Amino acid sequence: MYSFRNDYSEGAHEKLLQALARASVEQNAGYGYDRHSLAAAEMICHAAARPDADVHFLSGGTQTNMTAISAFLRPYEAAIAAETGHINVRETGAIEATGHKVIAVPGKDGKLAPPQIQAVLNSHLNEHMVKPKLVYVSNSTELGTIYSKAEMEALSKYCRKRDLILYLDGARLGAALTAPENDLTLEDLGRLTDAFFIGGTKNGALFGEALVICKHALKQDFRYLVKQNGAMLAKGMAVGVQFEELFRDRLYYDLAAHANQMAELLKDAITAEGFGFLAPSATNQVFPILPNSLIKKLSRDYGFEPWFKVDENTSAIRLVTSWATPEKEVKNFIEDFKNCLKQVDGQGKKI
Amino acid sequence: MYSFRNDYSEGAHEKLLQALARASVEQNAGYGYDRHSLAAAEMICHAAARPDADVHFLSGGTQTNMTAISAFLRPYEAAIAAETGHINVRETGAIEATGHKVIAVPGKDGKLAPPQIQAVLNSHLNEHMVKPKLVYVSNSTELGTIYSKAEMEALSKYCRKRDLILYLDGARLGAALTAPENDLTLEDLGRLTDAFFIGGTKNGALFGEALVICKHALKQDFRYLVKQNGAMLAKGMAVGVQFEELFRDRLYYDLAAHANQMAELLKDAITAEGFGFLAPSATNQVFPILPNSLIKKLSRDYGFEPWFKVDENTSAIRLVTSWATPEKEVKNFIEDFKNCLKQVDGQGKKI
Amino acid sequence: MYSFRNDYSEGAHEKLLQALARASVEQNAGYGYDRHSLAAAEMICHAAARPDADVHFLSGGTQTNMTAISAFLRPYEAAIAAETGHINVRETGAIEATGHKVIAVPGKDGKLAPPQIQAVLNSHLNEHMVKPKLVYVSNSTELGTIYSKAEMEALSKYCRKRDLILYLDGARLGAALTAPENDLTLEDLGRLTDAFFIGGTKNGALFGEALVICKHALKQDFRYLVKQNGAMLAKGMAVGVQFEELFRDRLYYDLAAHANQMAELLKDAITAEGFGFLAPSATNQVFPILPNSLIKKLSRDYGFEPWFKVDENTSAIRLVTSWATPEKEVKNFIEDFKNCLKQVDGQGKKI
Amino acid sequence: MYSFRNDYSEGAHEKLLQALARASVEQNAGYGYDRHSLAAAEMICHAAARPDADVHFLSGGTQTNMTAISAFLRPYEAAIAAETGHINVRETGAIEATGHKVIAVPGKDGKLAPPQIQAVLNSHLNEHMVKPKLVYVSNSTELGTIYSKAEMEALSKYCRKRDLILYLDGARLGAALTAPENDLTLEDLGRLTDAFFIGGTKNGALFGEALVICKHALKQDFRYLVKQNGAMLAKGMAVGVQFEELFRDRLYYDLAAHANQMAELLKDAITAEGFGFLAPSATNQVFPILPNSLIKKLSRDYGFEPWFKVDENTSAIRLVTSWATPEKEVKNFIEDFKNCLKQVDGQGKKI
Repeated sequence: MYSFRNDYSEGAHEKLLQALARASVEQNAGYGYDRHSLAAAEMICHAAARPDADVHFLSGGTQTNMTAISAFLRPYEAAIAAETGHINVRETGAIEATGHKVIAVPGKDGKLAPPQIQAVLNSHLNEHMVKPKLVYVSNSTELGTIYSKAEMEALSKYCRKRDLILYLDGARLGAALTAPENDLTLEDLGRLTDAFFIGGTKNGALFGEALVICKHALKQDFRYLVKQNGAMLAKGMAVGVQFEELFRDRLYYDLAAHANQMAELLKDAITAEGFGFLAPSATNQVFPILPNSLIKKLSRDYGFEPWFKVDENTSAIRLVTSWATPEKEVKNFIEDFKNCLKQVDGQGKKI
Repeated sequence: MYSFRNDYSEGAHEKLLQALARASVEQNAGYGYDRHSLAAAEMICHAAARPDADVHFLSGGTQTNMTAISAFLRPYEAAIAAETGHINVRETGAIEATGHKVIAVPGKDGKLAPPQIQAVLNSHLNEHMVKPKLVYVSNSTELGTIYSKAEMEALSKYCRKRDLILYLDGARLGAALTAPENDLTLEDLGRLTDAFFIGGTKNGALFGEALVICKHALKQDFRYLVKQNGAMLAKGMAVGVQFEELFRDRLYYDLAAHANQMAELLKDAITAEGFGFLAPSATNQVFPILPNSLIKKLSRDYGFEPWFKVDENTSAIRLVTSWATPEKEVKNFIEDFKNCLKQVDGQGKKI
Repeated sequence: MYSFRNDYSEGAHEKLLQALARASVEQNAGYGYDRHSLAAAEMICHAAARPDADVHFLSGGTQTNMTAISAFLRPYEAAIAAETGHINVRETGAIEATGHKVIAVPGKDGKLAPPQIQAVLNSHLNEHMVKPKLVYVSNSTELGTIYSKAEMEALSKYCRKRDLILYLDGARLGAALTAPENDLTLEDLGRLTDAFFIGGTKNGALFGEALVICKHALKQDFRYLVKQNGAMLAKGMAVGVQFEELFRDRLYYDLAAHANQMAELLKDAITAEGFGFLAPSATNQVFPILPNSLIKKLSRDYGFEPWFKVDENTSAIRLVTSWATPEKEVKNFIEDFKNCLKQVDGQGKKI
Repeated sequence: MYSFRNDYSEGAHEKLLQALARASVEQNAGYGYDRHSLAAAEMICHAAARPDADVHFLSGGTQTNMTAISAFLRPYEAAIAAETGHINVRETGAIEATGHKVIAVPGKDGKLAPPQIQAVLNSHLNEHMVKPKLVYVSNSTELGTIYSKAEMEALSKYCRKRDLILYLDGARLGAALTAPENDLTLEDLGRLTDAFFIGGTKNGALFGEALVICKHALKQDFRYLVKQNGAMLAKGMAVGVQFEELFRDRLYYDLAAHANQMAELLKDAITAEGFGFLAPSATNQVFPILPNSLIKKLSRDYGFEPWFKVDENTSAIRLVTSWATPEKEVKNFIEDFKNCLKQVDGQGKKI
């Protein structure tokens, strides 16, 4: 059985593992002060055209979100997120556990735009309510969609005018930046956001996210917060080494582009059979809406997540490809998909 | 320059790295439900003779302490620790950040005993004070000392009688269990503590600690707390794989024993020259008290931490050995130590 | 200018003030152990037919909610509330500041029912999400509506079956229990909820709420949490004395009934003029939907809160009556309302 | 039986109760925006010679401490307090519950001085430890002692030089400022501290403390934190009215001076009999060291707190006088004290 369940089923890309083996026999400084972490941070600053940024390496997305957001906010300040935002629904209330409310607003395909944020500001007027202060967006979103440069610029302009912090969760940033229709760059994010992170876990690393703090006022004493949140690895080089490899020769982009291409194959084949999708994903997560009978047949040979019950007979599932997904497995799936469909249709169970 | 600064300068033992490479090309279940983590957990349960225990793999010591202690306590309950305890002085207030007071008491060589705990109970009588509820001990301690079986049994008996949780920080448990004078076993800990963790980071792993929850009442919903504290790795297998190797053929013990032997060489040589120590370390951390002039000379060729100013002319330093410390480097150090000493003595700077 | 802005503009009823003066020259035990607090607690237990309940006196609604909810929940557990619920929108994230997410669901006229709660349970399935554990309802609600006995019994039955805590915010419980259409009693609440509070601040007291914990498992060490939340008054008798007066001769009910009657006069007069309301309030908060031109005229002589913009020309306002509202002021308002209306109509500004 | 147990056994001074009765029939703005609170705040600013200060009225000392300290600190910053400090031992970990460590240092008679603070700074060097940021002192202290102007100036100078916040807990500030040997004024505190509070609860008010924030950078959005901590009374006038009375004609000082005089009578009489004290109290708390046999006899007719076991036969007790303590009761006590002493001596139980 092959799994399209997520993009963290496989471990690390071999180049990263080899680099870890090389670094393991060195003596490195602890807690992120090793030369690999310093070199990787410099590469990232360069890629984001922000030589003044602070880069911190953390282990995972939830950890990065909670550490950053609780560092940036005073106790009564709140984060605004789309209802589908990872911090709102998939992090066990980690942000609230640091004391901050997440104000969820209906998004459009997982994305936020200024009017939705303005509605929050309009209804939070005084000290009886939390003070909205940080705007949380993810790119790619939890629905696989991406922000265009124009959308991100509009958000940035809006937030700066109202003294809101713009924070971007890039757990799947590689997939976003290498999507065919993408026109955003790391440089844009360095210019437009106050802080963002570059996800390694879901793009070839064993674990690790690189948080980039662009806004000077948010940098102070950040290492204290990393440590206090249990997020400072003694062998910090373990993340630094991996990002060094990912950013040395654009491996980060190559791996993400491969995942996107595999997803593209899936989308094209499913579209060709006349099915639609829950959201217009541009990246490595695909949400086809399929008859339950077909889903049942597919699930015999493939792993994937059930996602959303559309009606009595139809559901959306989530198929995820990764840097490690072999094209052969994708082609097998497509063939089996077509075969299963014929059987279902043959039984008169038309959609 | 060779560093005796700590036991996390080197990366992972090669067996662990090879196993990570093998597992990286598999598809594994996420979030710790992979077969490696399950197998490692079973090995650990077996070693602790607690088939009923829950084992959770986390990334580091601070993270494990904060997740466990905040899971075990109600908001007004407090942890008791020795003044030297890691949670009291070296974790940036991580326990307090989860809302709980750490009541620090003077220890003896970094250790706690019932009378010190009783003194805390005697002075915490009603709802105007926190309620002492958890006893935090570390083994080996922050001073390199270890608990004997009799000491641990006394603590356990005392805590059970008063409904106190006995929690053991085993960041350096390997060193403790393989110390020459040690008579404690993992089975003893499984029997005597309510929860303890087995440190991987400081004994051959790239990162990773195995938390063993023995007491049934402390197990409920623990994974929620792991996730909420940002401590659940998507690729949870990364820790499981390493512990599988560490516990397959007693590698965990072999690595720790090596570190202890290297420290023994250091202790013997320094003792032979007539110097004393800050505490009677039994493990891989050694705290010799030396003349400042000697320390200065040694620091040209060796890395180590200054630890404590004894008087105007004398200080304690910390020398740490690890699973990866080559005997050759230890011998070099001893030779250089003797040479430096002669020079210092030659200058008439007698201690 | 007379204010219908809220039900806390006036201080305490004279009987309460006199009792405070009498008690002020006594020597009373501190921290709520005084004879007045003990007597008042007993009266309340009797009224709720729960001799086994624990009663704690706190200062205000937000304080009571945060102390109770954070006492009842483990760190990863969440409260479910209607979107209009006080804890969701009017307490500056006090619940989140204690670490717990508030899951807001669309209510009906400010009320919750089992299907809305079930929808939350359906979408919170594992440790990547918070665990819904407490159902927060307010009676009367923030929209002035009330729960019927049948509705409360349905909620109670539903919650008990799923091991959910049913918690009732009674900041305006007096108004609810004395509403003409009400069929709930304090005894019912003692039987159906796990904990609830009886609001004094908005019904004749200078300040003070009486929290009644019915469920045994929620009682343990509660005074620790009161103290830790800064909610334990040294002169705890100050609240006890007031509740003693409120519950001695049903003063609590008489005061609330008066407020309701004054609101009834307002509702009848406004209805008679052909206007509708934002919600079918049964109590002392009334939300008429009026032309902006009329609102503007009324605001010259009366204080009230703008509440909701219905359309370009029409808004809802909030009028609140209290135990201290003189009937004369209500009649003046009604007369002025009619006069203003004529002027507005005379100007051809029909609604 | 007459109680010298504490200074909060009696309620409010009659002038305050009368003012509350007068204000109760007015309609006042809610949440502290009433004219009484505004007037009282102005009086306090005037008395402290800080027209630019922000004054907030809260209910009790623990609440004020937790709200202020958590507002002033970032998550990893800590408060330094004397071991005897109220926040360290008598507030159920309220400061830790807001996430901040309290670093306790041995004080001298309950007081802090720069060398003790410097020792903390010396041992907190990097991000593995909390960052000491706020110095908490109380005046009068928990042992009844007071700070001289010179001591307070030294603290202030020291803190400003190191960017530490100097915060003063004035739960018993009245007693301090009217002690015979005192040379500090409210103006001095306005000049020397960054924030302090003036305690009402223990000096004639039913409840209420006035927090004075002097340092501009600490003022921002403070009302959000008051509300979030459950500390904002709907009828905020209840505190404002009381402080208006306390500061209108120096009633605050007169009441405290009376308490001090009553304590002076006790001290003189006990000293005359040859007994010593636990600490050199200058105010309304007295800690005589007495034979247990005498204590036992006294406890038949008088209430007081046992405080400290000195040796097998001797203990310190705490006697507290208040604004409401009648001189007659003090004289009775002294007479009974002498009589009991004779009996004890007569039985040959010499001390």
